Amino acid sequence: MRIVVLGAGMVGSAIAEDLAQEQGMSVVVVDRSQKVLEKVKAKAAVEGIQANLQDKGIISSIVADSDLVISAVPGFIGFHTLQGVIAAGKDVVDISFFSEEPFLLDELAKSQEVTAVVDCGVAPGLCNIIAGHVFDLLDQTDQYVCYVGGLPLLRQWPFEYKAVFSPLDVLEEYIRPARFVENSKEVVRPALSEIELIDFPEVGTLEAFNTDGLRTLRTTLDIPFMREKTLRYPGHANVVRIFRESGFLSTKPIEVDGQKIKPISVTSKLLFDQWRLKEDEADFTVMQIVMEGQREGKRLRYTYYLLDRYDEETRTTSMARTTGYTCSIVARQIMSGHFKQKGICPPEFIGRVQGCYENLLDEYRKRDIRLIEKIVEHGKGSKE
Amino acid sequence: MRIVVLGAGMVGSAIAEDLAQEQGMSVVVVDRSQKVLEKVKAKAAVEGIQANLQDKGIISSIVADSDLVISAVPGFIGFHTLQGVIAAGKDVVDISFFSEEPFLLDELAKSQEVTAVVDCGVAPGLCNIIAGHVFDLLDQTDQYVCYVGGLPLLRQWPFEYKAVFSPLDVLEEYIRPARFVENSKEVVRPALSEIELIDFPEVGTLEAFNTDGLRTLRTTLDIPFMREKTLRYPGHANVVRIFRESGFLSTKPIEVDGQKIKPISVTSKLLFDQWRLKEDEADFTVMQIVMEGQREGKRLRYTYYLLDRYDEETRTTSMARTTGYTCSIVARQIMSGHFKQKGICPPEFIGRVQGCYENLLDEYRKRDIRLIEKIVEHGKGSKE
Repeated sequence: MRIVVLGAGMVGSAIAEDLAQEQGMSVVVVDRSQKVLEKVKAKAAVEGIQANLQDKGIISSIVADSDLVISAVPGFIGFHTLQGVIAAGKDVVDISFFSEEPFLLDELAKSQEVTAVVDCGVAPGLCNIIAGHVFDLLDQTDQYVCYVGGLPLLRQWPFEYKAVFSPLDVLEEYIRPARFVENSKEVVRPALSEIELIDFPEVGTLEAFNTDGLRTLRTTLDIPFMREKTLRYPGHANVVRIFRESGFLSTKPIEVDGQKIKPISVTSKLLFDQWRLKEDEADFTVMQIVMEGQREGKRLRYTYYLLDRYDEETRTTSMARTTGYTCSIVARQIMSGHFKQKGICPPEFIGRVQGCYENLLDEYRKRDIRLIEKIVEHGKGSKE
Repeated sequence: MRIVVLGAGMVGSAIAEDLAQEQGMSVVVVDRSQKVLEKVKAKAAVEGIQANLQDKGIISSIVADSDLVISAVPGFIGFHTLQGVIAAGKDVVDISFFSEEPFLLDELAKSQEVTAVVDCGVAPGLCNIIAGHVFDLLDQTDQYVCYVGGLPLLRQWPFEYKAVFSPLDVLEEYIRPARFVENSKEVVRPALSEIELIDFPEVGTLEAFNTDGLRTLRTTLDIPFMREKTLRYPGHANVVRIFRESGFLSTKPIEVDGQKIKPISVTSKLLFDQWRLKEDEADFTVMQIVMEGQREGKRLRYTYYLLDRYDEETRTTSMARTTGYTCSIVARQIMSGHFKQKGICPPEFIGRVQGCYENLLDEYRKRDIRLIEKIVEHGKGSKE
C-alpha cells in the first residue's frame, strides 16, 4: 500500500512515522520545505517530495499512484487541497481543520466514490468518534458535553499557553462566537464566556470556557443538548479577554503612523514566539466527555477521560500523538476496508460503524494513549 | 498685570480661569484650536489668540507685552516653548512636564534675569515644594517617600484607569526605568516593579509601584533615601505588565503585513479612547508624602496627605485643579515678588523660600484643596 502524506509539520510527520512502521506500507511525505522533509526522513523510512501544493494541477499528479492520502496541510489551504485529492479519486483523511463547510464537497466525493474523512484528530476527531459510538449504543441521547485542551507542561506567565498551531488560528477561536445546541436549538454564546473551574485527575484545576468547537456534530447527530468548552490553565481566558475587549484582536484596520493595519495581525505577530511550543517542550492533552441518555428504560451516563503526555523517547508532542495517531489509525481502517462509507465523513460516522471504536482503542493502547471509559446507571448509587 | 497662558487644554484652561478671577489681571490664552479657545472664553473673561507655537518666531511676539507667561503646552513641545519664552526675557511657570533636562536652560535664564519655574503641578510640583520646605525645617533629612496618583472615580475593567494626558505619555512612564536614591546613591528599578497594596483614608486600597517620578529632586536636595511610587487601582500594573512583557509597548518597529510598525503606536492608538477621561467624568487625586529626619536631636516624621476630588460645580477635574492651581498660585508668588530667584527653578526652590509654602496652603484652602500635615516625634508614643 502506498500512502501520500501532504504536509510534514508536527502532526503530519507523526502520522508519517506511525504509518511507516507498518509492514508493506510505503509512505511518501510532501512538504514545501526541504529542511522539514529531511527531519522526517531522519526519523522514519519515508520518501520525501518537495512541492508547493498551491501550484496548479500539482495535487493530482502527486497523489496519482497512491492508495490513500492524508492531508495535514495548514488550515487555510485545507479545503482547496481536500477538493484536489477528492477530484483525483483518492480516499483521504484530513486533519487540516479548515474553516469551510466540508459537506460542500460531499457530492463530489460521492460521485468519485471516495471516502473522505474530515476533522480526524482528537477534538475534532476522537470526540466525534465517541459521540457517534455512544449515540448508537443509546436508544436516545440527551446530552453531549466535551471539555478539551492541549497545554504546555510548564506554566509561564502571563498566558500559560503554547500553541501547536499558528497563534492567529487560536486567536480566531477566541473571537468566533461559540455555537451550541440547547433544547434541540442552536444557541450562540461569545467565545471565552462562561468561564468555570474544574479539577482533573493528575492535572489539577483548569478553567473551561466557550469556544466554537462542535463543528459537524451540531448537525449530524440528533442530540438536544451539545456543548464543547476549551481547557486552559486558570487565568488565560481573562488575559485574552483584556486583549480582545481592548481591540487587540480586531480584524478591522486602524490607522497608525499613517499606515492601515489590522490589530490582530500585530497581536498575532507579537504572540507568535511566546506561544510557540519550543523544540522538545513537553505538553499534554486532556479531554473529558460526558454523554447521557436512555437505553431500555435505564438512564445511563457515559464518561470518557483522556490524559496524554509528551513522549520523551520519540520526542513527539502529545498534540501530535493524539491528533496524528487518531488519523493514522482511521487511515488503516479505511485501507483494511473496515470503514468504507463514501462521501464526506466526519469522524462521528466512523464511531457508528460496528467495531471501529473498539479497534481505535486497541490501537491507542499499543501507542500508550489512555482513554478511560466509565458507564454509570442513574439512581443506582454508583459513585464516579 | 498681563499674563499669557500658552495652551488651553484641561490644565491650561483651569489656570486661565483661576487667574482671570483676580482683580487687575488681564489673561491672554493661546491655543492652536479656535474651538478650545471658545470653550475657555465662555467660562472666563480672557482674551484668546489662535496660533501654532511651533511656528518660527511666534513665541517672542506673542509674549512680548506680558508680565508673566504660563506654559501649559504638550510635553513634546515643552522644552522648545520654554526656551523661546526665556529668550524673550519673560518670567515663566511651566507645567508641560517635558522630558528634557531643564537645567540646560539655566544659564540662558540667568543671563536673561528670568525666573523660570518648571514642573509646577502636583507631582512634580506640590511634592517638590513640600520636599524643599521640610528639607529646610530639618537639620538633616533622611528620607523622602511620595505615593501619588490621579484616578477616575469609576472603576472600569480591565484597566480601571483614565489618563488626562495622552496614553503614549503614560505608557512611556510604564517603560522608563525608575531612578531612586538609596544610601545617597542612584539606584534603578524597572517601572511597574515592587507593587504593594496600601490603604488610604476615604479611598480604600490602592496599589503603588515604581515609576521614574523624582525628576529634579534626585539632584537638588541632599537626601540619602528618595523614592516616588505611582498609585492605581489594584491590578492595573499587572495588566500593563502583560502588555509590556509581551512586546506591546516596544518602540522597536516590527514587520506586519509588509509594513514596519512600532507596537507602542498601535497600543497607544487602541487605548486612546479607553483611557480618555470623558467629558464631566469625575476623577480624584491622592498623594501621600512621608519625610523623616532630625532637628535639634529629635527624630521627626512629617506626613502629608492630599485627597482632592472633581469639582462638579465648575466641572473641573481634580487633575486640573491640583496641577493648575499650584501653577497659578506660584505665578502669583512670582508677580508679587514673593519668589524672585532667577534661573531654572524646580518647585523645591520655592518650598525653601520663607512663607511660600504657607501662602500656597492658604490659597489651596480658598480653592477647597485639602492638604493634611502631621508631624510626629519618634519614640513619643504618638500614633498616626
